Amino acid sequence: MANFGGHAIPGTFFLIYGFWLTVKHILQHYWRKNQPKGRQVVPPSFKRMEYFEGGFTMFAAFVGIMVEQFVVDGPHAHLYDKDKGTWVKLMNWQHSTMYLFFGIFGIALVASTASKLLPVGVDRLALSLALFVEGFLFYYHVHSRPPLDAHIHSLLLVAVFSGSGSTMLQVFIRDNILLQMFGACMFLLQGSWFYQIGFVLYPLSGPQWELTLHDNIMFVTMCFCWHLAVALLLVVFTSSVVWLTLTRFSGRRRDVEIGMRNTSLKTSSQKALLEESDEE
Amino acid sequence: MANFGGHAIPGTFFLIYGFWLTVKHILQHYWRKNQPKGRQVVPPSFKRMEYFEGGFTMFAAFVGIMVEQFVVDGPHAHLYDKDKGTWVKLMNWQHSTMYLFFGIFGIALVASTASKLLPVGVDRLALSLALFVEGFLFYYHVHSRPPLDAHIHSLLLVAVFSGSGSTMLQVFIRDNILLQMFGACMFLLQGSWFYQIGFVLYPLSGPQWELTLHDNIMFVTMCFCWHLAVALLLVVFTSSVVWLTLTRFSGRRRDVEIGMRNTSLKTSSQKALLEESDEE
Amino acid sequence: MANFGGHAIPGTFFLIYGFWLTVKHILQHYWRKNQPKGRQVVPPSFKRMEYFEGGFTMFAAFVGIMVEQFVVDGPHAHLYDKDKGTWVKLMNWQHSTMYLFFGIFGIALVASTASKLLPVGVDRLALSLALFVEGFLFYYHVHSRPPLDAHIHSLLLVAVFSGSGSTMLQVFIRDNILLQMFGACMFLLQGSWFYQIGFVLYPLSGPQWELTLHDNIMFVTMCFCWHLAVALLLVVFTSSVVWLTLTRFSGRRRDVEIGMRNTSLKTSSQKALLEESDEE
Amino acid sequence: MANFGGHAIPGTFFLIYGFWLTVKHILQHYWRKNQPKGRQVVPPSFKRMEYFEGGFTMFAAFVGIMVEQFVVDGPHAHLYDKDKGTWVKLMNWQHSTMYLFFGIFGIALVASTASKLLPVGVDRLALSLALFVEGFLFYYHVHSRPPLDAHIHSLLLVAVFSGSGSTMLQVFIRDNILLQMFGACMFLLQGSWFYQIGFVLYPLSGPQWELTLHDNIMFVTMCFCWHLAVALLLVVFTSSVVWLTLTRFSGRRRDVEIGMRNTSLKTSSQKALLEESDEE
Repeated sequence: MANFGGHAIPGTFFLIYGFWLTVKHILQHYWRKNQPKGRQVVPPSFKRMEYFEGGFTMFAAFVGIMVEQFVVDGPHAHLYDKDKGTWVKLMNWQHSTMYLFFGIFGIALVASTASKLLPVGVDRLALSLALFVEGFLFYYHVHSRPPLDAHIHSLLLVAVFSGSGSTMLQVFIRDNILLQMFGACMFLLQGSWFYQIGFVLYPLSGPQWELTLHDNIMFVTMCFCWHLAVALLLVVFTSSVVWLTLTRFSGRRRDVEIGMRNTSLKTSSQKALLEESDEE
Repeated sequence: MANFGGHAIPGTFFLIYGFWLTVKHILQHYWRKNQPKGRQVVPPSFKRMEYFEGGFTMFAAFVGIMVEQFVVDGPHAHLYDKDKGTWVKLMNWQHSTMYLFFGIFGIALVASTASKLLPVGVDRLALSLALFVEGFLFYYHVHSRPPLDAHIHSLLLVAVFSGSGSTMLQVFIRDNILLQMFGACMFLLQGSWFYQIGFVLYPLSGPQWELTLHDNIMFVTMCFCWHLAVALLLVVFTSSVVWLTLTRFSGRRRDVEIGMRNTSLKTSSQKALLEESDEE
Repeated sequence: MANFGGHAIPGTFFLIYGFWLTVKHILQHYWRKNQPKGRQVVPPSFKRMEYFEGGFTMFAAFVGIMVEQFVVDGPHAHLYDKDKGTWVKLMNWQHSTMYLFFGIFGIALVASTASKLLPVGVDRLALSLALFVEGFLFYYHVHSRPPLDAHIHSLLLVAVFSGSGSTMLQVFIRDNILLQMFGACMFLLQGSWFYQIGFVLYPLSGPQWELTLHDNIMFVTMCFCWHLAVALLLVVFTSSVVWLTLTRFSGRRRDVEIGMRNTSLKTSSQKALLEESDEE
Repeated sequence: MANFGGHAIPGTFFLIYGFWLTVKHILQHYWRKNQPKGRQVVPPSFKRMEYFEGGFTMFAAFVGIMVEQFVVDGPHAHLYDKDKGTWVKLMNWQHSTMYLFFGIFGIALVASTASKLLPVGVDRLALSLALFVEGFLFYYHVHSRPPLDAHIHSLLLVAVFSGSGSTMLQVFIRDNILLQMFGACMFLLQGSWFYQIGFVLYPLSGPQWELTLHDNIMFVTMCFCWHLAVALLLVVFTSSVVWLTLTRFSGRRRDVEIGMRNTSLKTSSQKALLEESDEE
């Protein structure tokens, strides 16, 4: 989809997913930190979050594939035109392939949440593969384009492969909040960079960018670092807000509980119940 | 062996080996999971499987080398033709070298199964080296060929080196089922891609592929990702079937044993025997 | 800043920082080695050192950005000249971007020292990112320059990326003195190589270097190894001096304390106090 | 030293060092395996071996530097010829630099054996750096040579950098016999490949090799794999011989001791002594 919208849509998805990952992992980290040693059963709300994430990813991947195939100028599920002897709309097919692997990640996430038979980390491996395939296809996507176009896409690969690598590491190094935040940051970077590609290659207003000018390439390289700085800032800001909210919320809940205990403490069974919820 | 058969034969071998690895590692994983803590002696049937795998690899490598050398248009163990001052059939010699290293892997597997003196993981290292040598020779194999031919072989290298790397990791990270399944998946991918190379370069029917067309290269890149998706599916399907069979089989065996115990339980020595087999 | 001073200033900073890292990590290592098992609270002087390092880094980064922007021939915070349709002084903007990420490292260091909420190792990750961004921008900086100029800058990248990689490893492998010394060594190497670049490209006296001569490239490559040897020597020398000073100092302090105890030992409360400080 | 001897001398050294490493690590491995849990003090004979290795490396590096500098057509410690405005014999200077880093390794080995203050693994890091510098200098050494010459040297880099990487891993993964044997194997490979380079570029008899023929490059690539196979075989053979000798020797020594005890057992002090040596 060689227009601004075609870059804004995946960009929006990746941005939202980056924020989602930040919030999810901070919630899990808070829960791990505030958990008494004995109780290590993951609460059902976390499972529900994973089901939602997996289900949504499957749904979005399915919609993505359908749109790429059955859009007006799409291939309509035709791969090879025997009459002309040419491939039909390979770009749409490549995008469908990328969505397919994100769909596989969704399936892996739902399955590994539902069943304890699947090995731990299979969802991380699937996400890492999905990012790898995305980068792999983009890598050969980019050949024989004008310098600025090729360069701005190859910078995207830095975010994609860093994300793939850090997600792969999470298969082996579990529950490391730094790795998880770094992964989220790479999704934010990827998302915002998709927007940047849209702005540069299909400017909404103003003149076209000169695609062969060396100064443009230098600016775009530097601009990528600024996006990285902003992505770091967004991760820090989001996780701080989530953490503070959690601290305040659980503090207030505790106060409420203590208040309740003081006024309505009557039977020992109630008392035991309250203490249990207090430990949470 | 520049024809369809020359790609189908190694492809078949790698496909079979990928399935074998999937089944073997799932069996070992099931055994590890269902084992009481105290009994960690590997059952003799697992040892027999390793002997079979190693012995077969040695045999296949030996046959491979013989065929490459003594086929009608082979080098017949002549390396250098002094009269003409040229090397004799270097392609066959290169293939023989690849087989040699798979043969070394076979020897390492048999030896490390037979003797506890060999360090743990020496078979993984040997397999990793065999894949590395295969990729290493292919890498220089490919130079100065038409673009599509070079590209389709270089995609094979992605599977080969990923397999080599993940197998090398298994030297240090033992008994990780995800790594083992990933390794098996890379063998399946390699095997099916050999077939794809055969179909593209030596089509059984229809016209020849245009070896310089950029669209063909784009399609082949995408097709590689489809093979990866299929390889993942095959690993998941095979391991599920094996796992379910094992669960059902051991469940039924337990029922049978309980039935036996109810009807024929007579002496305490028999009882102890049955309980022992029940624990397995 | 394409002159000798423009390379001497960052070189000096990196040299000083390399020495600082060596001294800091040796102090921490000495403290860890001589600490009784029970007392693992980091002494406040170490915290103060981290605050100083972080604060100074922030300050230096701020000054660096200001200087790059508001120097006489700087961009004065203008990025794009709409009249001419050109970017304004991109080189200064790139240097500002590098300083920005070192500033982010300073913030991360201060924040992670001040609060236990931040995950362990966030400062190492930020430093690794700062070095990565530096190398990343330099990498595209170097294109389309004369051979010797490009080569001498690409050798700098060896030091920068080795530093970034080893610092990234410190996120996962904590308190490994070898890794820490290697990181410090890479800073010293980077610092001294900045000077070397200055001497080669903007010689203070004597003739200009021939930028296309192959022999010059060969010499410069070898010279980089000599810088590495000198950097190793500096790390070994500095850490030996610090270690010996610490051993002698703590030995003398102990003697003084023992002397004090012998002459002024009067009450049991004083005695307990002295024994406590003795254990430090 | 562009002649056969100039490749045979380092080749011989690397071959000998590869054998030495194999023997040393097998001895250490045997000792670790047969040691009762309580006694973990390294026997003095191991320390003596390290001193010998370090001392010899220092000596050889010193001799190497001297020979490269003061050989008849050497630079005689002159780096720059001011009259001609050219560098003097850069090749000899580069070789001296390589020797220098192996000398540094020797110093690190002796120092880390002598003193417990040095961090564990500093000798491995120094050896890894020495190999890295060797590979680094060779990498730029090779540019602008005929294809076969460049290719045969770049294959050497595979052995050098694999050796450097596996040695670096030994800094973090201590006492892993597989890693140690792999490192030894890379030294043997490097040594035998130096000979191969000598035979190809400066044949002792017969015609010169055609340096641009593609078939020669293909043969040389394959030949490298054969050298790897031979290096593996040598490591396996050497370690087996050493292990068998150790097993037989310690078995016989035990028999001798038991015999001695039976015939000459007289005082309890002697008895205690014998039992002690029995435990070793």
